[in-house]
Amino acid sequence: MTMRVGYIGLGIMGRSMAHNILKAGFPLVVYNRTPERARGLVEEGAVQAASPRELAAQVDVICSCVTGPHDVEEIALGPKGLIHGMKPGSVYVDLSTILPETARQVARRVREAGGEMLDAPVTGGDTGARNGTLTIMAGGSRDAFDRVLPVLEAMGKKIVWVGENGQGQTLKLINNLIGGVNLAVAAEGLVMGVKAGLPLDVLGDVLLSGSARSFSLEAMVDRAGRRFFDPGFKVKDRLKDFRLALEAARSLEVPLPATEVVEQWTSRLMEMGQAEADQAAYLLLLEQLTGVQVGPSRK
Amino acid sequence: MTMRVGYIGLGIMGRSMAHNILKAGFPLVVYNRTPERARGLVEEGAVQAASPRELAAQVDVICSCVTGPHDVEEIALGPKGLIHGMKPGSVYVDLSTILPETARQVARRVREAGGEMLDAPVTGGDTGARNGTLTIMAGGSRDAFDRVLPVLEAMGKKIVWVGENGQGQTLKLINNLIGGVNLAVAAEGLVMGVKAGLPLDVLGDVLLSGSARSFSLEAMVDRAGRRFFDPGFKVKDRLKDFRLALEAARSLEVPLPATEVVEQWTSRLMEMGQAEADQAAYLLLLEQLTGVQVGPSRK
Repeated sequence: MTMRVGYIGLGIMGRSMAHNILKAGFPLVVYNRTPERARGLVEEGAVQAASPRELAAQVDVICSCVTGPHDVEEIALGPKGLIHGMKPGSVYVDLSTILPETARQVARRVREAGGEMLDAPVTGGDTGARNGTLTIMAGGSRDAFDRVLPVLEAMGKKIVWVGENGQGQTLKLINNLIGGVNLAVAAEGLVMGVKAGLPLDVLGDVLLSGSARSFSLEAMVDRAGRRFFDPGFKVKDRLKDFRLALEAARSLEVPLPATEVVEQWTSRLMEMGQAEADQAAYLLLLEQLTGVQVGPSRK
Repeated sequence: MTMRVGYIGLGIMGRSMAHNILKAGFPLVVYNRTPERARGLVEEGAVQAASPRELAAQVDVICSCVTGPHDVEEIALGPKGLIHGMKPGSVYVDLSTILPETARQVARRVREAGGEMLDAPVTGGDTGARNGTLTIMAGGSRDAFDRVLPVLEAMGKKIVWVGENGQGQTLKLINNLIGGVNLAVAAEGLVMGVKAGLPLDVLGDVLLSGSARSFSLEAMVDRAGRRFFDPGFKVKDRLKDFRLALEAARSLEVPLPATEVVEQWTSRLMEMGQAEADQAAYLLLLEQLTGVQVGPSRK
């Protein structure tokens, strides 16, 4: 029997994922705080619910992708939350990036309500969401993971069960702290090089072919070369994830010296009014301090 | 007419590069402070000189690969230095990693002695040196670069002229500061993951497929999985390069916040007696502080 799927949170990421679930042939019920956002999906055949609770009553698998820990608590546990509507045996898959501890608490409440939860954050950005090529890292019971795998496969390409509840979130926060620090030090290197008179194309050519290479450096060279700072992944979201990572690390009693200094730097970008800029804006602070601009070479 | 080549400094890197020059068919003269190190190359047909000065008198292109700025000054400008023996029109190619400012000063003295200098540091490690697949980034006159290109091609695969004297060194220091910080944050992420209960193979699998991926993370996952800390690139050399990078950045008035915190961390590793360990030892400090060990998963 085909699983019926619900999707809560129709932002840039959520809308694309919901669309891919529908395209894969699953009957879909959707909910969004701002109901207008559901229009496109309803036109494609989705049913719109008035609350997470009502949505949960109509489906077997509930997905969500919202901004932060508070939003997850609200849609899951709030007065109109999905735990008050979900059928026994349902699986709730949260694809947001939140604290591992929050994921564990919500999972406990979902179990008490007769269901299972997976914390299943994603990487791959808006492009990955659109093309169904996300990486999904899921924490929770292996049995629940196996049951919802066909739904996850509609949204992602690399789908990994990583352990118990909270582990998906921990791994996601680690992914983002590494990528974020790599990005900041890429800015350090590029600004230093340009100040010393090296053209950006030479910097990119040599650094991306050697031991400095990273996904983040590649993104930074590309963005700097086009002076393109439209988001993408926003500075404010980068800061949110750094803070969640540092909070999770504090609970684990793991010091993160490099991450901490880059978190401070990210705060400075917020103060500079760059909250909505792409994270490649790490360049902007160093550019302001040094008076150089990292851009395409003047020929 | 075949260029005659000299090679000064027969450490792990230098010996491999000298061997490749010989293999490419260039007559070779070698010099090393500890003369015994030259034995293998002499058996292959190289001629041994008693000093950089005597070496310089016999060749058209002089290469060197030594430890730091002082060694370069000694072999180039010292009482028995190569500038006292070099023929007019010779090119001196220094493949060491030193300060851009030192490279510029030595280049000036070499020009006064009637030659040209290229600062041409390399990346690719001992494997790249052995296989002739190094990346070589050369600063100096374009004409000198073009003349010695056949010799550089014997040692490296990607060979880039990057600008005037000092620019090769600047780019190398940038390469190493980015790679070094990427490596340190890889340690942060892996230790946090293992402390949270995630197996190393899951961490490696997911992180290396997403936005956290880097050359350094790949190296760290590999080293941690084998608990293999034989050098490779030593902690003390990593520290040397960080300090050169920070000194060069200070002259340029470019702040490097992430690099600075990782330089301090590297100092701590030195204090812990890890000077001779591979740079993957960034793990060890965090492991000591957290009481976990990042290693192969127990199945």
